[in-house]
Amino acid sequence: MKIIEVKDIKDNLGKKIKLRGWVRNYRKGSSKLRFIVFRDGTGSVQAIAFKPEMGEKNFEKVKKLTLESSLEIIGIPSEHPKKTGVYEIQLSDINIINIADEYPIGKKEHGADFLLSNRHLWMRAPSQNAALKIRHTVYFAICDYLNQNGFYRFDSPIITPNASEGTTTLFEVPYFDLGSGYLSQSGQLYLEAGIMSLGKVYDFGPVFRAEKSKTRKHLTEFWMMDAEAAFVEHEENMKIQEELIRYVIRTVLEKNRQELDLLERNIENLEKADAPFKIWTHKQAIDYLRSKGVEIDYNDDFGAPEEEMLTSELAVPLFIEKWPKEIKSFYMKRDPEDPKLVLGADLIAPEGFGEIIGGSQREDDHDILLERIKTEGYNVESYQWFLDLRKYGSVPHSGFGIGLERLVQWMSGIRHIREVIPFPRMLNRIYP
Amino acid sequence: MKIIEVKDIKDNLGKKIKLRGWVRNYRKGSSKLRFIVFRDGTGSVQAIAFKPEMGEKNFEKVKKLTLESSLEIIGIPSEHPKKTGVYEIQLSDINIINIADEYPIGKKEHGADFLLSNRHLWMRAPSQNAALKIRHTVYFAICDYLNQNGFYRFDSPIITPNASEGTTTLFEVPYFDLGSGYLSQSGQLYLEAGIMSLGKVYDFGPVFRAEKSKTRKHLTEFWMMDAEAAFVEHEENMKIQEELIRYVIRTVLEKNRQELDLLERNIENLEKADAPFKIWTHKQAIDYLRSKGVEIDYNDDFGAPEEEMLTSELAVPLFIEKWPKEIKSFYMKRDPEDPKLVLGADLIAPEGFGEIIGGSQREDDHDILLERIKTEGYNVESYQWFLDLRKYGSVPHSGFGIGLERLVQWMSGIRHIREVIPFPRMLNRIYP
Repeated sequence: MKIIEVKDIKDNLGKKIKLRGWVRNYRKGSSKLRFIVFRDGTGSVQAIAFKPEMGEKNFEKVKKLTLESSLEIIGIPSEHPKKTGVYEIQLSDINIINIADEYPIGKKEHGADFLLSNRHLWMRAPSQNAALKIRHTVYFAICDYLNQNGFYRFDSPIITPNASEGTTTLFEVPYFDLGSGYLSQSGQLYLEAGIMSLGKVYDFGPVFRAEKSKTRKHLTEFWMMDAEAAFVEHEENMKIQEELIRYVIRTVLEKNRQELDLLERNIENLEKADAPFKIWTHKQAIDYLRSKGVEIDYNDDFGAPEEEMLTSELAVPLFIEKWPKEIKSFYMKRDPEDPKLVLGADLIAPEGFGEIIGGSQREDDHDILLERIKTEGYNVESYQWFLDLRKYGSVPHSGFGIGLERLVQWMSGIRHIREVIPFPRMLNRIYP
Repeated sequence: MKIIEVKDIKDNLGKKIKLRGWVRNYRKGSSKLRFIVFRDGTGSVQAIAFKPEMGEKNFEKVKKLTLESSLEIIGIPSEHPKKTGVYEIQLSDINIINIADEYPIGKKEHGADFLLSNRHLWMRAPSQNAALKIRHTVYFAICDYLNQNGFYRFDSPIITPNASEGTTTLFEVPYFDLGSGYLSQSGQLYLEAGIMSLGKVYDFGPVFRAEKSKTRKHLTEFWMMDAEAAFVEHEENMKIQEELIRYVIRTVLEKNRQELDLLERNIENLEKADAPFKIWTHKQAIDYLRSKGVEIDYNDDFGAPEEEMLTSELAVPLFIEKWPKEIKSFYMKRDPEDPKLVLGADLIAPEGFGEIIGGSQREDDHDILLERIKTEGYNVESYQWFLDLRKYGSVPHSGFGIGLERLVQWMSGIRHIREVIPFPRMLNRIYP
C-alpha cells in the first residue's frame, strides 16, 4: 500500500492508500459515523469513518481519537460528490500513533499572551500554517529574483563592533576579552565591502532592535534582506526594487492561492499592486499631507498614520525619494541638484501596510563621508574600514533593505507581525 | 555603446563595448604598451593599452592607474590568439572613476592577522572571491534540494531562553526586564515544533558558540542548516543526508568549475565522493581505530585526528551511527535493539575535512525524554514546551544539522575556516 501526502490525493483517487498526520478536528455523525478532519504538512482532508465499512474493531479505535492525536489513516480517496477539487477518504482502518492529551487551543477565544506562550502548538492552526507557508514563498521569491539578476549571497556578520545607525537600540553581547559586541541592525556597511569583490551582493538574516515598543508592528528580532550593487545609481536602484517586489507579488499569487484564500486575503488588491509604482519626492508628500490638513513640517519624517494617508488612495506602492539629509542616515549620497537632500527612497506598501523598503544611493566620496561621520558625532576610528572603501577604488553604488515580516504581512494581509514569524521575540517575550 | 560585464565578453567579440570595474593588476610592456588585469564581480580579463591605438591623451590616463583603482574601460574584445576561451580587450579609451591610494595588500606575504584586519579589502583577492562564490552555490544547493523535497523554510529564533545542549559555550544577551537571553546554538528544538504544523522544515541561519578555541576549524559565529521531518526514522534520515550532500557536490562541480580550478581543488576527489556513502557503527569505528593501534575506549568520542584516520582510505563520506547514549545529546532516540545506544549518526567528510553533519532520530516518548532531561540535570520547566510536543500528537521524527562553513571548506578545499565566510568572528576578533 502506497504512503502518500494530502497534496497527492488527487493523483490517487480510487486506490487504497495510507496517510500519516494529525486530527485537526472531528465530529460525530451518528452512532455508526464519524468525520475526521485529517491534516499533514501538505494540507487537510475529510476522512469518513463508517462502522459497517470499517468493522467494529477499527471503528472503536476511531472513537478514541482526540484533537491533535497523531495517526495513520488507511482508506480510499474520492472526489466530493458535490464539490469539484475537494476530496474525502472512506476509511477502512486507522493506526493510532499517539493519543493527545486535552488540547489547550481551540475550544474558545484565547488572548494573545496565551497563544504566544503556546506558540509551539498555536503554529498548527490553519491561519498560522498558511502564514508560514507564505513566508517561505516570499523568502525564496526574493532570493530567486536576486540570484537571477547576478547578486551573490553574502552573509554579513551578526556580532559587530559598532552600530550602523545610532546606539540606543542595540543589544549588547559581552565578548571574551574584547569587551562588548553588538547584535547587527543591518548588514549594509559590510555589503558595501562585498560589492568591491563580487559586484552585486545581498544578505538575508536576522537583525535586532532593542526598542521598547509594544505595537503590532514591532519585533526585537526580525529578518532583513539587504542588497547592494556597484555602479547602480538612485533611479536604477528604485527600478530594481520595483521589479523585485512585483516578482514577489506574482510568485505569491502563483504559489499560495490556497493560503491566501484561507486567510481571506483580498487577491484583487494584490493583483493591482503588480503595476508601475508611484514616485513622489519627500516635498511632494509633505505638500499632499498639508493639503489634507496635517500639521507637518518640510523637515519632518512620517509616522504610521501619515504613511497610511499617503497611500490610502493608491493601488500600488509609493516611493518617497529625496529626503532632507538631517532625517536620514549619514551614508546616503547627497543630491547633486540640491545638497540639502539625499538620494534615498522609502517604499510604502498600499492598504496601510506601511514601509517595506528603505534604500539609497551611498556616499562614495571619502571626504564628504568623513565629514558626515564627524557631524553625526560617530567614532571615526570604528568607521575606518568603511572609509577605506572610498580610498581604494570607490565607485557609485546603491542598495536597499527589505523587512521580511513587513512584506509577508502585506502579502498575507495579516495585521499583527507576531503571526508571520515562527517564534516572535518582543519586549516582554523570549519564551518558548 | 553597450555596457557589459566580464562574463558576457564572449558574446560581444568584435564589438566596441564598455566595462566597469577595478584594476586587479597592471604591468608595463614598453613605453607605448600597458597590460591591465581588469576585474568586475563576474570575472577578470586582460586589457591592452597601446598608445598608437588609443592616442596620447587616453594613454596618459592609463599611466595614472594604480592597483584597485576603479574605472570604465572602452574597447573591442577578441579571443586570445593562442588560448581558446581566453579573451582580451584592445582599449580605445578609459574613464577613471577613482585612483586608489597605495593598496596595502599584495606586495608581499602577509600574516593572518594583517589580512583579517583588512578583511574588507582582502575579500577582493581571487582566492577569497572564489571561496565566497562557492559558498553562495553551496547555500542554495542545500535550499534547492530541501525545497524540491517538500521542506519549508522555518526561521528558528536567535535569542533563546535556554540552550539546546549545555550552557558553558553560550553568548549571553541582557534582555530588558526578562534578565538574559542566549544566542542560539541550534534551531533544532524549535524545528521539532515546526514539523507538527508543516511536516518537514529547516532553518538556515547564524549560530553561536562562545568557545575559547583558536584552531583553523573554529568560528564563534557560523551558519548552520538544521532540517527536521515528521515520520522519518533513522535509516531514511541518513538517506536524505546522502542525497542532499551528493546534490551539493554535483551542483558545485557544475557551477563553480572556474573557482575550483583557481583554488587548485582536486576535482577528481570531489567527483569520486558522489557515490554511495559508507556506514559504520560507532563500535565498528572504534574496532578499526584499535586495530590501527589507537588507544581508545568503546565509550569515547572522536577527535579530529581519529576522524582523519577513519576516512583516510575512503573516497566517500562516512556515517558513524549508533553511539553510546552517554556521549550524545539527551533528545536522541534510544536504539530499540540496544538501549545503551542512540539512533544518531555523524557524517565525516573524506580528505581530512572532518564532521560535516550531525543527525539523529529524536526521542518521541514523553516519559523517556523527561527522564533524560532530569538525568542531564537540565531545568525541566524550561523544556516544558518541548515536552508538550510529545503530549499532543507525538510522531516518529528525525533531523540533522549541516555546518555551512565546514561543507564549503570541503567543496573548495580551503583549509582555514576563516576564508569561507565574509567576516569571520573568532575568539580575538570582531573587527571589521
